[in-house]
Amino acid sequence: MKKINNQTYLLENPVYIHETASIVGPKEKDGPMANYFDTLLEDEFWGEKSWEKAESKIVKETVNSLISKTNLSSKDIDFCFAGDLLNQCIASNFAYRDSNIPFIGLFGACSTFIESMIVASSFIDGNFAQNAICSASSHFCSAEKQFRFPLELGNQRPPSSQWTVTGCGAALLSKNNIGPIIKSFTPGKIIDMGIKDVNNMGAAMAGAAKDTLITHLKDLNRKPSYYDAIFTGDLGYIGKDLLIDLCLDEGYNIKNNYNDCGVLIFDKETQDTHSGGSGCGCIATVFSGYIYKQLQEKKYKKVLMIATGALMNSTSSQQGESIPGIAHAISIEI
Amino acid sequence: MKKINNQTYLLENPVYIHETASIVGPKEKDGPMANYFDTLLEDEFWGEKSWEKAESKIVKETVNSLISKTNLSSKDIDFCFAGDLLNQCIASNFAYRDSNIPFIGLFGACSTFIESMIVASSFIDGNFAQNAICSASSHFCSAEKQFRFPLELGNQRPPSSQWTVTGCGAALLSKNNIGPIIKSFTPGKIIDMGIKDVNNMGAAMAGAAKDTLITHLKDLNRKPSYYDAIFTGDLGYIGKDLLIDLCLDEGYNIKNNYNDCGVLIFDKETQDTHSGGSGCGCIATVFSGYIYKQLQEKKYKKVLMIATGALMNSTSSQQGESIPGIAHAISIEI
Repeated sequence: MKKINNQTYLLENPVYIHETASIVGPKEKDGPMANYFDTLLEDEFWGEKSWEKAESKIVKETVNSLISKTNLSSKDIDFCFAGDLLNQCIASNFAYRDSNIPFIGLFGACSTFIESMIVASSFIDGNFAQNAICSASSHFCSAEKQFRFPLELGNQRPPSSQWTVTGCGAALLSKNNIGPIIKSFTPGKIIDMGIKDVNNMGAAMAGAAKDTLITHLKDLNRKPSYYDAIFTGDLGYIGKDLLIDLCLDEGYNIKNNYNDCGVLIFDKETQDTHSGGSGCGCIATVFSGYIYKQLQEKKYKKVLMIATGALMNSTSSQQGESIPGIAHAISIEI
Repeated sequence: MKKINNQTYLLENPVYIHETASIVGPKEKDGPMANYFDTLLEDEFWGEKSWEKAESKIVKETVNSLISKTNLSSKDIDFCFAGDLLNQCIASNFAYRDSNIPFIGLFGACSTFIESMIVASSFIDGNFAQNAICSASSHFCSAEKQFRFPLELGNQRPPSSQWTVTGCGAALLSKNNIGPIIKSFTPGKIIDMGIKDVNNMGAAMAGAAKDTLITHLKDLNRKPSYYDAIFTGDLGYIGKDLLIDLCLDEGYNIKNNYNDCGVLIFDKETQDTHSGGSGCGCIATVFSGYIYKQLQEKKYKKVLMIATGALMNSTSSQQGESIPGIAHAISIEI
């Protein structure tokens, strides 16, 4: 087995992140990461008649853009691993229906992007794929409509709430010797901290992030300083501070090299997104845009990505259930 | 690469289906497969306050039963791969939250069970897991409530509609040399036949089943008669007849050794389920109950399992979208 200690796996065969692509919405276009995304949309509909169709188009065009950037054709892609936040993952399902590529649908809430990279890495390392696409998306309007209130109501949002990113990030993982290398992964367990406040997802997921992060470091006998940067997605401001404290309680200081994609994607002062960004599309776009380019330019040489998901729906909350979280991690080096 | 021709993979290292477990609801208890299931419930609530909580309990207890049948402990299980039909897969997420096992959430609609076995097989063959649990569930009441009408309305159901199975099936896949062997898998592409009738899922999914079945046979240069039995799940009566015709059009006669799990699980004459059973739990329970026992007793020595999923939700249908289908296949020999 490739497992090291509890639940971390070292890849035997290099899995390269050959290329990435990203498309984001108008709010992300006004944020501090705008220059790193491939395409910036002017509005939330992109010519479609519904937000759900718009989200699906964003996924489809991100994947088309990804393939066209690589000089590969869709025939060279063995698998797509994808998911999103919409009920029954319809954004991804409809986006890939014309792709003509074998499709494995995933659901890990906002952890889906890194989850997809873990599954794809296993398929590539195990010789089941030469090239695989990983993608995850979310859309502010379709998510608010589905999980919270009709946007038309103009409900106030509490300070602990996060703003769902409109966007899709996609990565082509490959055996071909191009790009940063996925060196290891630590799949997460479901951790329930007993949080029931659906407007405080960061707190609900921080325990899962801590569990996966510390398990990863212990399994590989590493300190946080082994990595140039550690990123979670998407704990937001509140969850980020919680994670720092939770890690400190266990003797791990991550203050100096840790940030959260939900914190990075919006400007706290001017964009009124309260605790920051969230949604499957947040870590997917920030990785595919900003972080991937930092790796390519060797500004970071060793990065740990930890994606967190809140595994609930509106029915479970109405029935008084707490919000279990999960966090999946991969380490990337160049 | 382990790929043979277009999209079929031969496993290099044997992946054994070490054990299975199944729990079903009261309607399934009255059906022709009842003797093969482990636990038969008297009602749809099982002591819980909601159908969603009941479905989650069914998954949790099926998995507990599976582990206890194997003499393994949860520490010996490296991964769980699971999914269901509820929005954001809450049945599985809540069921596994106390499991303390790394969790990979999947969504393939009613194809989820075989999808989970494909992913688990890849992880085991590629040396990322020694033991992995695969599960999928559905619940008639939670599904009707979510996808169609409140049950209290007592709406009539059209003759082409299928009856969502209440139940969970789970399998322990392992490197340990016990049980039938997964020899190959053929992951499916998303196929859209343009069907828009949400009461005719069998027709919507038959095209995907045909595509995966014929691709599998062509890739391995096999005739349908290579297998003692071919099972789909869940096309129901209408989809089953369609698949037979679609295959005949392409020169493949599957009449003699093919059946559908949705046809098998209910009695057409007495149970009033119209076109038969459906839901992630249908193929999961029929495999974990009936088919697995036939393999153990060597009544079947070579079986091809093809799970089909309809990749839609109620919003996509309200917005006029068609229903894309997907079908994933694994072959099992003893």
